Amino acid sequence: MSKELSKREENYSEWYNELVVKADLAEHSAVKGCMVIKPYGYAIWEKMQQALDKMFKDTGHVNAYFPLFIPKSFFSKEASHVEGFAKECAVVTHYRLKNGENGEIVVDETAKLDEELIVRPTSETIIWNTYKGWIQSYRDLPILVNQWANVVRWEMRTRLFLRTTEFLWQEGHTAHATAAEAIAETEQMLNVYAEFAEKWMSIPVIKGIKTPNERFAGALETYCIEALMQDGKALQAGTSHFLGQNFAKAFDVKFASKEGKQDYVWATSWGVSTRLMGALIMTHSDDKGLVLPPKLAPFQVVIVPIYKGEEQLAQISEVVKKMKKAMEAKGITVKYDDRDTQRPGWKFAEYELKGVPVRIAIGARDLENGTVEVARRDTMEKETLQQADIETKIEHLLEQIQDNLFQKALSMREAKTYKADTYEEFKQVLEATPGFVLAHWDGTAETEQKIKEETKATIRCIPLNNKQEAGTCIYSGKPSTQRVVFARAY
Amino acid sequence: MSKELSKREENYSEWYNELVVKADLAEHSAVKGCMVIKPYGYAIWEKMQQALDKMFKDTGHVNAYFPLFIPKSFFSKEASHVEGFAKECAVVTHYRLKNGENGEIVVDETAKLDEELIVRPTSETIIWNTYKGWIQSYRDLPILVNQWANVVRWEMRTRLFLRTTEFLWQEGHTAHATAAEAIAETEQMLNVYAEFAEKWMSIPVIKGIKTPNERFAGALETYCIEALMQDGKALQAGTSHFLGQNFAKAFDVKFASKEGKQDYVWATSWGVSTRLMGALIMTHSDDKGLVLPPKLAPFQVVIVPIYKGEEQLAQISEVVKKMKKAMEAKGITVKYDDRDTQRPGWKFAEYELKGVPVRIAIGARDLENGTVEVARRDTMEKETLQQADIETKIEHLLEQIQDNLFQKALSMREAKTYKADTYEEFKQVLEATPGFVLAHWDGTAETEQKIKEETKATIRCIPLNNKQEAGTCIYSGKPSTQRVVFARAY
Repeated sequence: MSKELSKREENYSEWYNELVVKADLAEHSAVKGCMVIKPYGYAIWEKMQQALDKMFKDTGHVNAYFPLFIPKSFFSKEASHVEGFAKECAVVTHYRLKNGENGEIVVDETAKLDEELIVRPTSETIIWNTYKGWIQSYRDLPILVNQWANVVRWEMRTRLFLRTTEFLWQEGHTAHATAAEAIAETEQMLNVYAEFAEKWMSIPVIKGIKTPNERFAGALETYCIEALMQDGKALQAGTSHFLGQNFAKAFDVKFASKEGKQDYVWATSWGVSTRLMGALIMTHSDDKGLVLPPKLAPFQVVIVPIYKGEEQLAQISEVVKKMKKAMEAKGITVKYDDRDTQRPGWKFAEYELKGVPVRIAIGARDLENGTVEVARRDTMEKETLQQADIETKIEHLLEQIQDNLFQKALSMREAKTYKADTYEEFKQVLEATPGFVLAHWDGTAETEQKIKEETKATIRCIPLNNKQEAGTCIYSGKPSTQRVVFARAY
Repeated sequence: MSKELSKREENYSEWYNELVVKADLAEHSAVKGCMVIKPYGYAIWEKMQQALDKMFKDTGHVNAYFPLFIPKSFFSKEASHVEGFAKECAVVTHYRLKNGENGEIVVDETAKLDEELIVRPTSETIIWNTYKGWIQSYRDLPILVNQWANVVRWEMRTRLFLRTTEFLWQEGHTAHATAAEAIAETEQMLNVYAEFAEKWMSIPVIKGIKTPNERFAGALETYCIEALMQDGKALQAGTSHFLGQNFAKAFDVKFASKEGKQDYVWATSWGVSTRLMGALIMTHSDDKGLVLPPKLAPFQVVIVPIYKGEEQLAQISEVVKKMKKAMEAKGITVKYDDRDTQRPGWKFAEYELKGVPVRIAIGARDLENGTVEVARRDTMEKETLQQADIETKIEHLLEQIQDNLFQKALSMREAKTYKADTYEEFKQVLEATPGFVLAHWDGTAETEQKIKEETKATIRCIPLNNKQEAGTCIYSGKPSTQRVVFARAY
């Protein structure tokens, strides 16, 4: 398979699709809409999981596991939830197959379920049905639980990582004695997500709240982090919901307060998914392939020997062995690719495609000079360095790359953030220079809906601590007190 | 809820069911046959996962993720596989719900799938269908992939952890160029499982191979580890399968050898599941509750202060803080339970129920004497120790407990392992003193089946490196060259 990718400028969408497959991240499966996450892609997801899981535990959360299936009737219990979710789902109706007449297998019609089961699209209902048994008094609160799981939302048009019928995610579900505590939890987890996006993924995000239109089905308030991709489209990278007492009321979950009063429990839920892989790819990568921030790279450094004959390879390998050990002692992950089945040039292209942050090449002349050639993936710059203390130099370089990727993504976002004061200007910006468009909005769902229908742009969020300024809605001309963030989005 | 459990001697089965729920490990969910794994139980499973995952990676394996759903037709492709598996499955037939007439939601009959999807009971078929695209030549081999996932096998009679409709597991699926390499992989993973069982879970296991009757559907050889529970019933704790070229042929996966010849690829698969939680509980626990080997305990040490008044608590807490820090520096996990809502006696019973390996109590007199009271969960022994260097003493004690649990389980197994030379004797042993029964068998499936029907005992395995001795089959009287391991099993 050729390593050549389409160019971003020419066909961004093709470029993305090819990159995901060629860099061995994921591929389409035999099941429509479901992906196979390949080992290299899964290794990145594991790094994300480890970092997030630690952040969740450091903020007092524990993991648990709830059933894959949800009884159909559960969805009807929370009225707004069913409207938002229950429609496009995988429905289990039978529990047995049998041999058919021609050697094929068929569904055993006698094994029909009394009540259909839905493959979870999200777990609020089954979890709050469980919490009913866990919560009697204020002593049982808060409950700070997270689940790592697969979920299914039937999708007609899918794209690897960005929108798939099955995806992997984590969903936090917490229960609290007061609204204030639940809101604080919702905001805390939003901050955890933002920190993860910026410090680990090197993706700058805007923290904000969704408009009522864009809220999670069943939430009183949805907080989100919004990122901007290189093509100027927005991507929602994580959400944290204040659910009020909606699910507690739907599943009758009450607690006795210190004063002995009965009240419904307050809830939050929050999640990020394998969609983050899509955000990671689209924020940093280039026409040569993936670009990974060092903190999430399955291996941070690849070493390629350039040699003629076994003897030279043995001499190089001896030096490499020591360098590798010294780097590993610093917690740097290193791969030494001494395969003789591929040429150096092939390997260089391969690791560029796979986004390995640092490549070290070492040849015969380097042995004589005590040097190595170091190439960084983010800028494609090369320099010749002395082997002495290489581990410290690489350690610093990895930090620089991590920072540089963030700064580059931030500059890109800033360059693609526009203000529009009239609807004409707004539409023109969307067409000519896609990005975040800051514009005044009259605060009504009707206006939001009209703009969406006419331009495909949605309100990504109302930023937290948003600057207040008097203006007029670009659509209705009515007065407005702040600009909100519009964009076309994934 | 009372902490009192049924007694093992009186009702082993009730004791187990109560223990799982009361120790906060798992509970039944609203979905028949599916369990909720509660945070304390899930924390133990996470420790298991971490240890196993490291062992898999240390032996060269990588993780990946394959779809939850499998097209129905895939099951028909490998003839023996469909016989063993495809029958009791969750079948997805529709992909949409809609609002019904009375406000309830109903299945949208217009959204019927052309081909039904099966929720994976195991993933050989979908994975080998994927490998077809990954393998062209010997250079692509071996593929050493593992998946952590949920699977569903419809069960009519379920028990928490031991047999549930949905369970969590890992499934390794490897592809090799030669039969010898695949067999070596199968045996390597059996050894990994045995080491994990013995070193981490403190459960002695017999390594062996299954009879053809008991083989995995589609395997040429199934290796297993078999453990013995306190009630004398056996539990299969892990399996590793040599699949030959069966799945490669079913999904047409060929490779070009170094010499340019086309051949089908050789396969293995291997797995352990949340069933291990059941084995862990039933091997070590007692009438007071769970007993955990230190290496798998969510926290290894609990410290309980015994005090009157705030001032005394403050003095105790100061000492505890230092001890805790010193222990944590050694990698020991410690919980300090200074809640004022519960009395010490209640806490003691709680942590005995939850199987915390070591309890440290510290009161006013201990402050004066520079001592603490240390109680170990496995033997229920208590001793008074000087606070000085407590971290080293506890470190050694935890190692002792880990070893002691293994030795105790080994002694139990040895005491419950019998020889039987006649069918009468065999039946009597099974009734009077359940355990492993070593007996001669004529090697036929018919005899095995008859014995199973008449006694409910199955051949658990033919041990590896089994001692060869001449004898006669207990059932048929025909000649036999070795004893095999019989037992009634979970």
